[in-house]
Amino acid sequence: MNPPRALIFDVFGTLVDWHGSIAREVRLILGPRVADPAAFAVDWRAQYQPAMEAVRSGALPFCRLDVLHRHNLDQVLAARGLDDVDEATRVQLNLAWHRLDAWPDVAPGLRRLRERFLIAPCSNGNISLMVDLARRNGLPWDAILGAELARDYKPKPAVYLSAAAAFDCAPDEVMMVAAHSDDLAAAAACGLRTAHIARPDEHGPGRGEARASVPVDLQAQDLVDLALQLGG
Amino acid sequence: MNPPRALIFDVFGTLVDWHGSIAREVRLILGPRVADPAAFAVDWRAQYQPAMEAVRSGALPFCRLDVLHRHNLDQVLAARGLDDVDEATRVQLNLAWHRLDAWPDVAPGLRRLRERFLIAPCSNGNISLMVDLARRNGLPWDAILGAELARDYKPKPAVYLSAAAAFDCAPDEVMMVAAHSDDLAAAAACGLRTAHIARPDEHGPGRGEARASVPVDLQAQDLVDLALQLGG
Repeated sequence: MNPPRALIFDVFGTLVDWHGSIAREVRLILGPRVADPAAFAVDWRAQYQPAMEAVRSGALPFCRLDVLHRHNLDQVLAARGLDDVDEATRVQLNLAWHRLDAWPDVAPGLRRLRERFLIAPCSNGNISLMVDLARRNGLPWDAILGAELARDYKPKPAVYLSAAAAFDCAPDEVMMVAAHSDDLAAAAACGLRTAHIARPDEHGPGRGEARASVPVDLQAQDLVDLALQLGG
Repeated sequence: MNPPRALIFDVFGTLVDWHGSIAREVRLILGPRVADPAAFAVDWRAQYQPAMEAVRSGALPFCRLDVLHRHNLDQVLAARGLDDVDEATRVQLNLAWHRLDAWPDVAPGLRRLRERFLIAPCSNGNISLMVDLARRNGLPWDAILGAELARDYKPKPAVYLSAAAAFDCAPDEVMMVAAHSDDLAAAAACGLRTAHIARPDEHGPGRGEARASVPVDLQAQDLVDLALQLGG
């Protein structure tokens, strides 16, 4: 195949360890009030798709992921009887998503990939969240693409197609990189090429995708492996 | 005043020398068929505001600046009797706007400013154009904001306000940096702070703004001077 001109990346799980980072932040901020911070992280993340579905379906006008995260946080706190957590603490907790740590291969892998390809996140996270993750983890993006540009959420086609268009690329000149088979299947349906990254521990030890469950163009162990497979 | 959290930048004229760069590209691509490449550059640029006005007024749906530049190029060629310039040459010429050179203070100035502030272009140029200019000139942006995100053109308020919102900033936490008083007046009307950069030779020797003609928060000689004035 001809090499792609641009690579666009899923972020939560694919590039950053939301599970371990959110558990750490919950432990730091709420302390012993939460017995199992990892379970809190999983419960918070479990509200992610239903909240976006309200936007995707048209029931809610587009709003940024920080707003949905906050709505979901309030629900997770209420379900645990933590209604007395004050506003300032909720704001601080919600910004935990801006303080996620990248997997160790990500910064070196992106630096190598950037030598040959245009690179951007194509995440459901908002621009400020992506900017904070880039600064924290040294991610050398060419642009921040994704949901806030498209004003809709993956897996809606507008998100993948607006990212390709922003780079002046036809869909088949762009490769979507993700650790999630459903994200890649949606990108492939839009005409993009696909690379799956193994993140077998995304949701905790042994709870993640070690391989794609759908046809993909490339299967990689991590971003450095992806760079090698793409000839970098 | 409290320091701003983010700086957003006009690009054409403020950061890059469109006049000299377009003249160079016209000379390279059209050769002796154009007697005065600098005049060609000025004529092409003169179509810029009228073309955007059709979008701002609602007469045309939003389209990216590359599309408007191409429309304007066809008009400038026709006015000079150059109707026989072929399609491939027109495409190459239109991409001249992706190959503009930055003024020499810009890359070092942005690197210093980035140590203390979030930074992004807030240009009427499309994302791919901004990405190509950033790669060519080493501009270390946090994000590419501006017209393509807002789906409208400066000086419409949506462009400035969408850039502030993308950085999670209130308008008065953002400083608009430009070499054009009209751009700064529009940003100030939206509640942003303003810094004027002297570019006295933007449209050719002695044809540019050496100082703001409207009230601004800061007047700087170049981006390194701006960094110094902002305490960097």
